[in-house]
Amino acid sequence: MTDEASGIRTYSFLGPAGTFTEAALAQVPEARGQRWSPVRNVGEALADVVEGRSDAAMIAIENSVDGGVSTAQDALATVGGLRIVGEYLVPVDFVLVGRPGTKLEDVSLVAAHPVAYAQCLQWLTRTLPAHAHVPAASNVASAVGLLDGTSDADAAIAPPGILDHHDVELLAEQIGDNANALTRFVLVSRTVAPPPPTGADKTSLMVELPEDHPGALMEMLEQFATRGINLSLLASRPIGDALGRYRFVIDADGHVHDERMADALLGLRRFSPKVVFLGSYPRADRAVVHYPDRYSDDVFVEARDWLRGLLSGEPES
Amino acid sequence: MTDEASGIRTYSFLGPAGTFTEAALAQVPEARGQRWSPVRNVGEALADVVEGRSDAAMIAIENSVDGGVSTAQDALATVGGLRIVGEYLVPVDFVLVGRPGTKLEDVSLVAAHPVAYAQCLQWLTRTLPAHAHVPAASNVASAVGLLDGTSDADAAIAPPGILDHHDVELLAEQIGDNANALTRFVLVSRTVAPPPPTGADKTSLMVELPEDHPGALMEMLEQFATRGINLSLLASRPIGDALGRYRFVIDADGHVHDERMADALLGLRRFSPKVVFLGSYPRADRAVVHYPDRYSDDVFVEARDWLRGLLSGEPES
Amino acid sequence: MTDEASGIRTYSFLGPAGTFTEAALAQVPEARGQRWSPVRNVGEALADVVEGRSDAAMIAIENSVDGGVSTAQDALATVGGLRIVGEYLVPVDFVLVGRPGTKLEDVSLVAAHPVAYAQCLQWLTRTLPAHAHVPAASNVASAVGLLDGTSDADAAIAPPGILDHHDVELLAEQIGDNANALTRFVLVSRTVAPPPPTGADKTSLMVELPEDHPGALMEMLEQFATRGINLSLLASRPIGDALGRYRFVIDADGHVHDERMADALLGLRRFSPKVVFLGSYPRADRAVVHYPDRYSDDVFVEARDWLRGLLSGEPES
Amino acid sequence: MTDEASGIRTYSFLGPAGTFTEAALAQVPEARGQRWSPVRNVGEALADVVEGRSDAAMIAIENSVDGGVSTAQDALATVGGLRIVGEYLVPVDFVLVGRPGTKLEDVSLVAAHPVAYAQCLQWLTRTLPAHAHVPAASNVASAVGLLDGTSDADAAIAPPGILDHHDVELLAEQIGDNANALTRFVLVSRTVAPPPPTGADKTSLMVELPEDHPGALMEMLEQFATRGINLSLLASRPIGDALGRYRFVIDADGHVHDERMADALLGLRRFSPKVVFLGSYPRADRAVVHYPDRYSDDVFVEARDWLRGLLSGEPES
Repeated sequence: MTDEASGIRTYSFLGPAGTFTEAALAQVPEARGQRWSPVRNVGEALADVVEGRSDAAMIAIENSVDGGVSTAQDALATVGGLRIVGEYLVPVDFVLVGRPGTKLEDVSLVAAHPVAYAQCLQWLTRTLPAHAHVPAASNVASAVGLLDGTSDADAAIAPPGILDHHDVELLAEQIGDNANALTRFVLVSRTVAPPPPTGADKTSLMVELPEDHPGALMEMLEQFATRGINLSLLASRPIGDALGRYRFVIDADGHVHDERMADALLGLRRFSPKVVFLGSYPRADRAVVHYPDRYSDDVFVEARDWLRGLLSGEPES
Repeated sequence: MTDEASGIRTYSFLGPAGTFTEAALAQVPEARGQRWSPVRNVGEALADVVEGRSDAAMIAIENSVDGGVSTAQDALATVGGLRIVGEYLVPVDFVLVGRPGTKLEDVSLVAAHPVAYAQCLQWLTRTLPAHAHVPAASNVASAVGLLDGTSDADAAIAPPGILDHHDVELLAEQIGDNANALTRFVLVSRTVAPPPPTGADKTSLMVELPEDHPGALMEMLEQFATRGINLSLLASRPIGDALGRYRFVIDADGHVHDERMADALLGLRRFSPKVVFLGSYPRADRAVVHYPDRYSDDVFVEARDWLRGLLSGEPES
Repeated sequence: MTDEASGIRTYSFLGPAGTFTEAALAQVPEARGQRWSPVRNVGEALADVVEGRSDAAMIAIENSVDGGVSTAQDALATVGGLRIVGEYLVPVDFVLVGRPGTKLEDVSLVAAHPVAYAQCLQWLTRTLPAHAHVPAASNVASAVGLLDGTSDADAAIAPPGILDHHDVELLAEQIGDNANALTRFVLVSRTVAPPPPTGADKTSLMVELPEDHPGALMEMLEQFATRGINLSLLASRPIGDALGRYRFVIDADGHVHDERMADALLGLRRFSPKVVFLGSYPRADRAVVHYPDRYSDDVFVEARDWLRGLLSGEPES
Repeated sequence: MTDEASGIRTYSFLGPAGTFTEAALAQVPEARGQRWSPVRNVGEALADVVEGRSDAAMIAIENSVDGGVSTAQDALATVGGLRIVGEYLVPVDFVLVGRPGTKLEDVSLVAAHPVAYAQCLQWLTRTLPAHAHVPAASNVASAVGLLDGTSDADAAIAPPGILDHHDVELLAEQIGDNANALTRFVLVSRTVAPPPPTGADKTSLMVELPEDHPGALMEMLEQFATRGINLSLLASRPIGDALGRYRFVIDADGHVHDERMADALLGLRRFSPKVVFLGSYPRADRAVVHYPDRYSDDVFVEARDWLRGLLSGEPES
């Protein structure tokens, strides 16, 4: 965590150096020049934050090729005292690397994390039809093994960041089978007040439904729809305490400082047995949130003024 | 209006003495011993209030046999500065009366307001098959004409209250064709703060829809439904400025001091181009309003406290 | 009813000749040259139809100055075996008439049905400030009384149609206080198959809600909204069997032969303890019904074809 | 695929023998004694079915520790001509195995698929604090490597099914950190007619929303809610063609042969630019689907009969 004497802040991330998660952390301006602490999984990263060993943790939250997204979502729902303060997108983009001097045509044994291997299988089948696969423990371990002599492989599949940290030969770029794939990361700190709205914000929530009946989900979504709030993510996750009970992972367009979002949160809180507010933070894509004029802040303020007038008994102007 | 010197208050009602409207006014404890001012129609009654000639006016608002209900609803929607402060129910119950000494079997000519006549037609056809009808200008004028010599009729249809004011012979009671019919009246004053909630309250509103599209009405009703508020009256009335534009006359169970009702009013105000709050007042039937626990005041208060905590950045307890 | 030998059809209407209802009947092309049977009230008119004395009845259904609209709505909800086959609009437009030779400046005593009198009060107060009112049993009786010697009045308020039937002097036209007021009439026959759709149709229904709970009304309205159907009339009417139970009077844009309307009716029937279908018929204003393309007939047909394919197990094309 | 001469059917599954997927296939009575064809990933399994090499494929669809669930969901949404015909649940339950004669206390190097390794990390940390991890390509390859000499590890993490296929020493059972975890599998065939309803069925769908606006999701869910249908799975998945476009993965309680489900499918089809029906099939947990009486088949049938009567013009009985 922040070293009081030095003012240095600590950021936990899924290590080692060179992972996609590190690439996400590299997008955080205020993390530059600070201490980056590699950890082995998302649980460790969040524990670092909760227990004060780190100021923040970068974790994958959607469509990760490092795995663990469900774990991350469930952890955010159940571990208390956390707040998302930023969102970052990293292309799912792999390179093939070898020891210095290696040539692509010499590659027959390829080290790769099994998930990454599956993501590049079409390219490998096309380019190296005779190759064999050696599993690696992570997207970075695959390449590191080439250099430290622990792997017999001729080449490794790794994130592009590997080139910044290790003296490897680049054999091929952009070998992933889906050129548009992105992983979404969030930066998580202990509970803090939300950063000020930017107009291009997102609010993340975990919401449990009151009962397992047909109308409950709709009633939850009405809380957003009747305030003009769009959802960019909605997923049901089993709560785990009983079959058929679900919580919902929600990303809603807008900031808790927006009147319509604050009002929707009040509605959710009254409706749901459990709402976890994970934070309002700037969207990674910086896309400005659009909404009908009738949901703007001044409409809410005007309505409150009107109600206050009604209660006072003063004639309406 | 209240005479400053004497402290006497003035109440306008559709007169003359003996009408159903007077029977409604007789239900108002605080009107006893005050000045009762008979007027000729609802417009005059409301003008008395707005212009300060009366402290309050009693007007029929639903299912009246004195007529004029649409007029009353439209007037409340367009005349500003008014507030409903009480609700009263009067049975639609007619008597047949004659000059002193008249006997039922001698009746052949019956004076009656045309609407009252229609309400008693089955009884008349059965009891006095050979009778003829003489129209009267009001439910009281019918009986008064017998006594002042302006009417040739043998008997008159009138409200039971006629017996308190005029020396007439009661020929038959409860001659209305629908024994359960009730007229609903409201007592209207200038804008005042709502009376305190009693737990058995009603809130009256006029609401315009933003546009004539299929979803607008539902969106309006959601404002009530998502806060557990039942409606006891819902009627569309043409606004009159253009074909197909409607306002809605609404009676909702509960009081504006209830959190759920205040929140619904905020939602309506944000949604609608025009909401007229006509008042929260005790129901005539004193039926306690029931609603699910999840819409109770403390749930609203707790949600606000929770939101305040989120914004402060303090860890949740 | 239709005389078998002559082929003459019979139409009941609120008489006598000269009423607004007769003006509505005059708009029906197929009624020309047929037998028009004047009756005294809406109950009589509907009984004529049900019991076979008439082929159809013209009745006021909304905003009538002849009164009786609630009665008409309630009768349509409870009397079985009826179907609305046409809709007609008549301006609420009054004339002041006298005996031949009468001049406006000589008028001091005005005969008028009390409801009509209220509708012209502003004009009368302005034009004949010293006049007195003599009540009349109907909008036609007012004028007839001038001619047959039963009335002492100098002039009578009547519908414009009076000029076609009686030799009266026209003293003033368009004396109603609301120049835009319209009364809506419907032509009612015994149950028949609906007339073919014209593209500018309306469907009238009476619907009871399953229970008195906040969501029931919305659930009813969803049946229309989720099929893109706009409502032009919605009013709650007490059912009368118990306090707080309401039925809804509904006019919906479109024809039961439209797929979306038929589907909505199925949804209503499944939802409601009682749905009365009163008919699909051309709108009086001939305004073509617009609706989103996604609710057009071919979309419904295509969906059924698709479902049939799913059930058959044939691969989707 | 089914060998015409022998009548032997072929089932593809994620191999090799011993995987969780094989354990799911072992639950299928009709697969016993047939040909089981191990494949390397879900794409291969589905291609086998589409191209006729297999009669059916078993694939993990939710909460898999073999990975690939998003891939499976996306494949079902985009590959045509497939139908889910059965659902199976397999506990996520790991064993630790060694070469014959190995003892737990001698284990220092543990071979494991990285995802499985993460699932057992708490147990390993507690039981074998000094262990090191050797990654394996799959949950079975980990154990096979011990026996074929390709792995230096002392022990391997594997599914319990490994004991049925390989001569390994069982060192520890139930070493997964979450004792309640389940993976959900589905058996997929080419498009066939749905199996008959059992009363405990599930219907799987992929639905695209018409536009990215606040109300579209609610409108989709209303199709279920207004027919009393509960959803047991709802998840948004990016469609991939443009940012912010989502499809929804849906499991709904009930069978397409149920009237309410068929009607909901019609509503979805009319609403959505793309609905993929993946099948109606018995639930793995055999839990009978409960729903309000008002959504039973006979209510739908009765409503259709009623509508037919309306259209015919016959008087209602």
